[in-house]
Amino acid sequence: MVLIEPVQPGNIGGSARAMKNMGLSDLWVVRKSEPPPYWVKAMAVHAADLVSSMRIVATLEDALAGCGRVIGTTARDTRYRASVKPPRELAPRILAEARANRVALLFGPEDRGLSNGEIRFCHELIRIPAAPEYTSLNLAQAVMICCYELALAAAESGSDWPEQGAARKLATSEQTERMFERLEEALLAIGFLNRENPRHIMLAIRRMLNRGGLEDGEVRILLGIARQIAWYARNRSADGSADGGKG
Amino acid sequence: MVLIEPVQPGNIGGSARAMKNMGLSDLWVVRKSEPPPYWVKAMAVHAADLVSSMRIVATLEDALAGCGRVIGTTARDTRYRASVKPPRELAPRILAEARANRVALLFGPEDRGLSNGEIRFCHELIRIPAAPEYTSLNLAQAVMICCYELALAAAESGSDWPEQGAARKLATSEQTERMFERLEEALLAIGFLNRENPRHIMLAIRRMLNRGGLEDGEVRILLGIARQIAWYARNRSADGSADGGKG
Repeated sequence: MVLIEPVQPGNIGGSARAMKNMGLSDLWVVRKSEPPPYWVKAMAVHAADLVSSMRIVATLEDALAGCGRVIGTTARDTRYRASVKPPRELAPRILAEARANRVALLFGPEDRGLSNGEIRFCHELIRIPAAPEYTSLNLAQAVMICCYELALAAAESGSDWPEQGAARKLATSEQTERMFERLEEALLAIGFLNRENPRHIMLAIRRMLNRGGLEDGEVRILLGIARQIAWYARNRSADGSADGGKG
Repeated sequence: MVLIEPVQPGNIGGSARAMKNMGLSDLWVVRKSEPPPYWVKAMAVHAADLVSSMRIVATLEDALAGCGRVIGTTARDTRYRASVKPPRELAPRILAEARANRVALLFGPEDRGLSNGEIRFCHELIRIPAAPEYTSLNLAQAVMICCYELALAAAESGSDWPEQGAARKLATSEQTERMFERLEEALLAIGFLNRENPRHIMLAIRRMLNRGGLEDGEVRILLGIARQIAWYARNRSADGSADGGKG
């Protein structure tokens, strides 16, 4: 569980308690400084061990190092955030993926939720079903529901998992991010992306590729394609030709 | 929802918010005096309407007046409390009963839970599944899980909300196949694929892209990339340079 810049220290403690209630333990907080300890501890009650082992890191990248799967949580349901699923549906798959990968669940700050920049890292999004009149849950309660669904899915599957095919080993977040950077450079170089605003199409490409989860070898293939495109683009410019086929 | 002598006013507000998130509204508090309003309101956030309509009564009997069904919540699982069920199992029945009856869900104080005297009123007991190391949930989080299960049971039975975004409209097989052909041609043209045996890598690319299902717009993006790569490759050959950057 990764809490991104939580405003209320009580929500950190409340999240730790919820995790311990549901048998989870790996809590990360993205925050420039240590949170003031009083409310963290008060709300954690008997989950003090989780609080003392929680990792506080400066950036989201730090928290995601080595993660093969990144799931975001959102209260909104815009068109852009198309592949949003309820926790009950996603929980069994998250568990299966967690057998072979580090899986991160991201929770944004209380007031604004995950930013689009943060959602870029997510392979998939969870939305907790809520009444349309008030869809924004308290942070620690949202953590609780996600932990609860994971715990119930684990209990349901017993110890012997219904093998959904061997668990796939996914590429880490760093590998995938580096590949997306190279791909963006390559697509800019051949003029497929507009230099003023490459983000929109790149987001669509990210979403499409992340949806199914990328394996090591697949990231290498995409890197290879990016490298080859870039090679072409470089050599063409060296020939003195004009750049870009589009505009 | 009936909170019996809650100690922390914040838990009253947190419960109100949880209820509003899940589309419930009828909150009762058994307490000798009005709770101090500051933390109630702070934790209720946008559920102020529930807080102002909540009923504060002196005794449990007052709260249960007119109730046809009383369900208690407990963290313990003693022999005495034999007919304890998880909320997921009980929720559909509670909903069915609520169509013809006032149904009360009782939550004991944070520190001790429901007393045996209070459990006497209960027709049935709910226990939220939790890790054996720490079975005692925060009060407002326990309220949240019960409300959440009721809301999902309601949605499942067809009465209410969760519209999780319309089903995604996927591209047709023909569109996708045509795109893969163009992509293969483009990757051959820039020498990324080996002309003797392009199949192996193309299969990996297909598998990767098909895994999550491709939408119309995504197929168009991939077609656009293929076209732009092909344009580059063609123009480079027209320059008279050797073909391919690889071999």
